[in-house]
Amino acid sequence: MSVHRNKRALVVLSGGQDSTTCLYWAVREFGAGAVETLTFDYQQRHRIELACARAVAHQANVPHVVLPIDTFAALGGNALTGTLPVATQPDPTTGLPNTFVPGRNLIFLSFAAAFAYPRGIQHLVTGVTQTDYSGYPDCRESTLQSLEQTLRLGMEYEITIHAPLLHLSKGEIVRLAETLGALPAMALTHTCYEGCRPPCGVCPACRIRAKGFADVGIPDPLLQQVC
Amino acid sequence: MSVHRNKRALVVLSGGQDSTTCLYWAVREFGAGAVETLTFDYQQRHRIELACARAVAHQANVPHVVLPIDTFAALGGNALTGTLPVATQPDPTTGLPNTFVPGRNLIFLSFAAAFAYPRGIQHLVTGVTQTDYSGYPDCRESTLQSLEQTLRLGMEYEITIHAPLLHLSKGEIVRLAETLGALPAMALTHTCYEGCRPPCGVCPACRIRAKGFADVGIPDPLLQQVC
Repeated sequence: MSVHRNKRALVVLSGGQDSTTCLYWAVREFGAGAVETLTFDYQQRHRIELACARAVAHQANVPHVVLPIDTFAALGGNALTGTLPVATQPDPTTGLPNTFVPGRNLIFLSFAAAFAYPRGIQHLVTGVTQTDYSGYPDCRESTLQSLEQTLRLGMEYEITIHAPLLHLSKGEIVRLAETLGALPAMALTHTCYEGCRPPCGVCPACRIRAKGFADVGIPDPLLQQVC
Repeated sequence: MSVHRNKRALVVLSGGQDSTTCLYWAVREFGAGAVETLTFDYQQRHRIELACARAVAHQANVPHVVLPIDTFAALGGNALTGTLPVATQPDPTTGLPNTFVPGRNLIFLSFAAAFAYPRGIQHLVTGVTQTDYSGYPDCRESTLQSLEQTLRLGMEYEITIHAPLLHLSKGEIVRLAETLGALPAMALTHTCYEGCRPPCGVCPACRIRAKGFADVGIPDPLLQQVC
């Protein structure tokens, strides 16, 4: 029995493999009736992510809300919302991929907290991983700890940020998903940076996903589909 | 001569009295050519604020960008963007005014940092005041310090948040505005929660503004207008 029973959690659900695993983690930790999901429509290049998030939430039988954020697209200058193509190599100046949107996770979690506040939800769950290939500085434990403190101070509200995948490799995440019974939902997720379904298999995101499944010898349910 | 010469600053400009004073403070500290302004169109109840911000930036001869944020309106449940009337008394449960949007300043400053990052701007200026009548927890020094740390970690970018009005009373802000030569620009600002021009004079925001000018014996240029 989890220590989190009788508390409620909000999972930031992108429609990808990691946040879907987090959703099933939250259901185990908090109980199915205590979990809600929130997806951001930030005019991402691949609208299919929104449909995937909805399908995942539906399969897990949890409430799902989509909140719009038009600001990132207005900011421009990155490959996630803009018209820039996704680069296969990091920017030589910053060392960051050109899918980097400065502060994106900070803003997602701040909006999630603002959504949670009037609903009395005190637990946020995010699928960020420190071991991620991308090296995004907003996916580090130190950043999340600092953000949690900032949100607590700024809202006078005891909110806790859970990042259960933070120190897991992609292979370990696949293993966790199996343990949680989340593998069937993996067929509904989206990872490919090129927006392809079936996935392109060659973009950085596809290759990392494939390696994660291969590392633990589990077939990717997404690739088992007949569609 | 300011220590900030040769650095650049971004002022979060709401079109109100405080952020306008901050703009003139930033021009003094950083130099007129080193200051830009950013206003958020978050579908605020009073669109006149956007026009006021534009007019203030024009008068100060600094660049001005408006960034949209549609998320707060989608969140609903507050008097700043929603259809709720502005309450004259704080909510008896939370002790906060019903214009409180959880985390609003955290999100504004995070977006400002995301805007500043690709432009190489490392100084953000905000008009929040800890002595403000409203008791917003995101206007406290401890919150701003924590946010600054979070942004530095999350963006791997040495950003500094300046809040020059933080410990000033409304009267002291008027006195500072006079010192900075910002009083003429005060005629262009907007404060009234009811959205009236000339101001209604009876809403909490109008009354606090009037008291600030009265406390230091300076006429409010906004009330001197013939319009």
